[in-house]
Amino acid sequence: MNEPDFIAALRSLPLHPGARGLADDCAVIAFGSETLVITHDMMAEGTHFRADADMADVAWKLVATNLSDLAAKGAEPVGVLIGHMLGRDDARFVEGLRAALTAFDTPLLGGDTIAAAGARALGLTAIGRATFTPVPARSGAQAGDGVWITGPVGRAMLGFEGDPEHLAAFDRPLPRLAEGRALAPLVSAMMDISDGLLLDAFRMAEASGVTLALDPQAIPAADPAQFDRCIRWGDDYELLFTAPPAARLTVPAHRIGTVATRGAAPLLLGETSLADPASLGYRHG
Amino acid sequence: MNEPDFIAALRSLPLHPGARGLADDCAVIAFGSETLVITHDMMAEGTHFRADADMADVAWKLVATNLSDLAAKGAEPVGVLIGHMLGRDDARFVEGLRAALTAFDTPLLGGDTIAAAGARALGLTAIGRATFTPVPARSGAQAGDGVWITGPVGRAMLGFEGDPEHLAAFDRPLPRLAEGRALAPLVSAMMDISDGLLLDAFRMAEASGVTLALDPQAIPAADPAQFDRCIRWGDDYELLFTAPPAARLTVPAHRIGTVATRGAAPLLLGETSLADPASLGYRHG
Repeated sequence: MNEPDFIAALRSLPLHPGARGLADDCAVIAFGSETLVITHDMMAEGTHFRADADMADVAWKLVATNLSDLAAKGAEPVGVLIGHMLGRDDARFVEGLRAALTAFDTPLLGGDTIAAAGARALGLTAIGRATFTPVPARSGAQAGDGVWITGPVGRAMLGFEGDPEHLAAFDRPLPRLAEGRALAPLVSAMMDISDGLLLDAFRMAEASGVTLALDPQAIPAADPAQFDRCIRWGDDYELLFTAPPAARLTVPAHRIGTVATRGAAPLLLGETSLADPASLGYRHG
Repeated sequence: MNEPDFIAALRSLPLHPGARGLADDCAVIAFGSETLVITHDMMAEGTHFRADADMADVAWKLVATNLSDLAAKGAEPVGVLIGHMLGRDDARFVEGLRAALTAFDTPLLGGDTIAAAGARALGLTAIGRATFTPVPARSGAQAGDGVWITGPVGRAMLGFEGDPEHLAAFDRPLPRLAEGRALAPLVSAMMDISDGLLLDAFRMAEASGVTLALDPQAIPAADPAQFDRCIRWGDDYELLFTAPPAARLTVPAHRIGTVATRGAAPLLLGETSLADPASLGYRHG
């Protein structure tokens, strides 16, 4: 099976209401007097990191990408569990974990360690506590809302390609935890931009049943000369959100478009209709 | 690094108090008005399942082994997240998930799906709600307590080796969820027997700072002719627990020994001192 077929098959299983139909980045569970937000991501050697990557960077990224999912829910991290396959440079991996857990003030809760042959796969489960309910989702964008991002796109791409100014954007991304918490009460929809602005905006439009009309002049790109690539590359982990016109945002953000009722395509970039998700993401590394 | 070295390195990281020093099967977190119990296990092709295994059995086992960790805490399952690497027989994998989630009345919460080369690694995170606090731990066994198991050991071994009567014990193990909930208020220490009775009893003795004195005559083995192997093989997922002499157990269980103050070795099997954990487990498929 390919990934869409597999996820469609999973949707036929008994789903928890907090699974949000497997269409969101996290599960959201009312638990006692609070709301639990939980996410799990895997990374595999050869697919998500190179065989010669610094394992400290890999560990950082494993933590950061999961915490970015919590950030998009306005959740405060409680802790993480790791699934670790032993291999080269495990001491570097632990040092990267230490750096990330310290930087994001998030403790280790547990996990599992295995020995196995072949390419390495690593998993991380992040648990958070919602700071605002209802917890923001990809769905919820309303016609008339503004579309915003918290920062420029393309920095991770430049870092991946060796630009010394942007190396950290690729190797050591920062989840927008404070921004997510500040925005959660204000937004109508929110997600992190992990797979590229266009593809993630498309997904938000689909989940919300609207069209997102983006203004290319308004989108901040780390390298305007490579605008088309910057808006397709992922790994930047800025937050993409929609908010009603009257919302008074409390964090710096760039207005990049407007939500419209669903038209012919879920996504408009200026005058261009973008209806095929296969054309929106940029396959990389 | 090997596994003990890696886990020792992890212990130097910022740990959540609920991580229990990475010495237990689950993390236990006070969350709102309730207590969250969470565990993550991985399985890899070639190490934890054969390349020709029925992927439906693999999925069942991935669910069952994690729920067994919840059972040992007396926790009620809330849901699971899966980390799935695409590969052969994904439809069978989904069918096994469906069977297990239905059998254990546990919904899917979410997860992650990746495509990668090489041997497959699969992860599962199980979340539960404690039904009794304090939540039982491996530590807590007191001198004078009885040592008990909920059922015989060695059935999974016989099933693995082709005994038709015991195939299901290996392929489709049953977490002792009801037993764990009934026992949680009564026990001084509890864990599941995933790695073999002797090795897991050794770990309980170490975590509790006591000696467990086991009576070989009292240990129920699925095949008495292979007693030494039955008490070393794992994968049975019975519960091992200690309880004060006055405890009135509400589930059937076998008394297999007595807790003593720490002597020369953490484990006694009849008159034999067992001090080297390397001799206690049985390496298998």
